[in-house]
Parts: sequence; structure tokens; C-alpha cells
Amino acid sequence: RPGREVLFFPSRPSCTEALLAEAAGPGEAARLCPCPCPLPRGDCSLSRLLRRLLSARRSLEICLFAFSSPQLGRAVQLLHRRGVRVRVVTDAQYMGLQGSQIGLLRQAGIQVRHGQEDGYMHHKFAIVDRRMLITGSLNWTTQAIQNNRENVLVVEDAEYVKPFLEEFERIWEEYRPI
Amino acid sequence: RPGREVLFFPSRPSCTEALLAEAAGPGEAARLCPCPCPLPRGDCSLSRLLRRLLSARRSLEICLFAFSSPQLGRAVQLLHRRGVRVRVVTDAQYMGLQGSQIGLLRQAGIQVRHGQEDGYMHHKFAIVDRRMLITGSLNWTTQAIQNNRENVLVVEDAEYVKPFLEEFERIWEEYRPI
Ligand SMILES: [Zn+2]
Ligand SMILES: [Zn+2]
Repeated sequence: RPGREVLFFPSRPSCTEALLAEAAGPGEAARLCPCPCPLPRGDCSLSRLLRRLLSARRSLEICLFAFSSPQLGRAVQLLHRRGVRVRVVTDAQYMGLQGSQIGLLRQAGIQVRHGQEDGYMHHKFAIVDRRMLITGSLNWTTQAIQNNRENVLVVEDAEYVKPFLEEFERIWEEYRPI
Repeated sequence: RPGREVLFFPSRPSCTEALLAEAAGPGEAARLCPCPCPLPRGDCSLSRLLRRLLSARRSLEICLFAFSSPQLGRAVQLLHRRGVRVRVVTDAQYMGLQGSQIGLLRQAGIQVRHGQEDGYMHHKFAIVDRRMLITGSLNWTTQAIQNNRENVLVVEDAEYVKPFLEEFERIWEEYRPI
């Protein structure tokens, strides 16, 4: 079952530039590689998470309490430019905080919605091509990725993916565009 | 696959007294039922989560950033009294906050450990009888249960349960008893 994976964080620091450049296409790869930074190359939980996201070909639904990781933000923008239909739901309170990627995503033309509720929109999941669920405790922030104990599950079983797709559509319909 | 389930929150308010009394045994059930409160009876995400926990017969590992829900606290104490081996890992910063159940669990004789780390212990999972994983975005707080948009997955596939058991044991060994 290649679809199944469990990732734990904190992720050891590593350079993800090659991964992002490769996903951006040949021209971008030639311009950006090799990155001069001293971080080690190779696999880590963040690079595995990025790979899963970058595998999207048609659609990406994102439902996140907090989103401030620059690497994950770049991955999402890259998918949008590649023609993947990206939709983002986020929490209203967190959205305006310093370092949030939400403003940059909107400026890039990505659809974002949030609610005006008393409670938090506390989900932390994404759905790739309507068949792969990525969910867990991890908010997409550098703090969480590098410092916290966190988990992410990658799941392709329809019994899990379908209810999360339905939850996303429920929230998407209820929330207003911003 | 009866082991698989997805729960979404907020959970509609409902009375969980009968469920807890039933799990406590015949004497307790006679003393507590019927509860005089006006809340509706019947199934909700919280009652389903409680049922999963109360199915424990041998062991319960809990790894939670925040734990303040009185109902879930009572369920865990009840399992401890029933002879289930309960171990709790939690976050040091949150543990001392008002309303935390951690002090009550320790007073009841349940083993609790926490770290002294820069990052948060941000996991939100439990493992029942080493075969059922309960994990998601939900902290075990009344705020989250009643007000937030949250998810919980119930998973019995060993490919997911085993890495979480190993993660729990890693953290348990690393943290000190309190
Ligand atoms: Zn680099
Ligand atoms: Zn009641």
C-alpha cells in the first residue's frame, strides 16, 4: 500500500530547494539549483510532506487553522501556477497574524475562505486529487515543523478520504469568499 | 471494517451520564441514572469517542497537548479503576492551566509524564489495547468539543497503529515522571 505513511515531527532541518525547484519545472530548476545554503540534503518529514503535496495534478483542498510555512506556501503557489485547482479554508483569527501565508496565496489568485465563528476552524488537513488525505496535529508553521512533536497521516482509503471531502465542501459552502 | 470511523466536531450537546454510568458498572449505574439534566440523549461525536475509549480492556496510552474535558477525564479515571494500564503524556506548558484534568489524573494514581522542551508536545492521540489508534486535531477540551471544527480518526490498521505506539514509547522514555 504505497499510499500509507505516517510522518512525525519535529523534522530535522534540511534544504528543500531542490525539491521545490524540480517541481517548478526545468527552467526554474536550472535557475535555482544548487542552493548555496549549508543545510543537509536528503529526506525528512517536511520533504516527504512536500512530495505528497507536489504530487497533485488536478485539485488540492486545504483546511488549516494556521499556515505560515514559506516552503509549504511556495509549494501551494507552484501547484496553482501548474493549473491545479487549489481551494483554501482557514481560521479567521489566525489569518491576520504576522507571517501568515494566506495573504500571499490570495495575492497569487488562490481562492481562500474563512468563517466568522466563535469556535476555531481547527482542522489541519489537505486532500490531493480527491484521493489522498493528509491529516494530523501539524499546523503548517515553521515553529510546528521544526520544534513541536507532531504527527501527519497520509491515507488513501476512501472510508477516510470521502468524509473529509464532504466536510471540506460543507465548510466551503458555509464560509464566504474573502 | 468496524474499526474505522471518522468523527467531526463540534459535537452537539448531549448527556453522556448514562454512558459513563454504564461503563462504571451496575452499582454506579443504579446510583447515577437517570440524569436529571435537560440535554438530549443519543449519539454524538463525543459519545462515540467515549465509547471507543471505554472499550479498553488492558491498556490506554494518551498523548495530548491539552486535556480539560471532565467527561473524558472521568472516562480515563474509570478505566484506571477497572484495572486498565493508563499512561498519559502531556505538554508541560498547558498542564498547569486552569481546568486541566492532569492534576486529577495524577491524584487518582495514573502515571503522567511531560517534557521540558522548547517546542510543544502537540500530539492529540490515544491508543486502546495496543490495537486502536484515535487521533486527529481535537484536544480533549470542552471548548474544542463544543465549539471548534475538529476531526478524529479511529484506525485499527497496524501500519498506522505501530508507528504511533513507537512514538509514544519514545516520548515516554525520554520524559520524566512527575
Ligand atoms: Zn538550501
Ligand atoms: Zn445529563
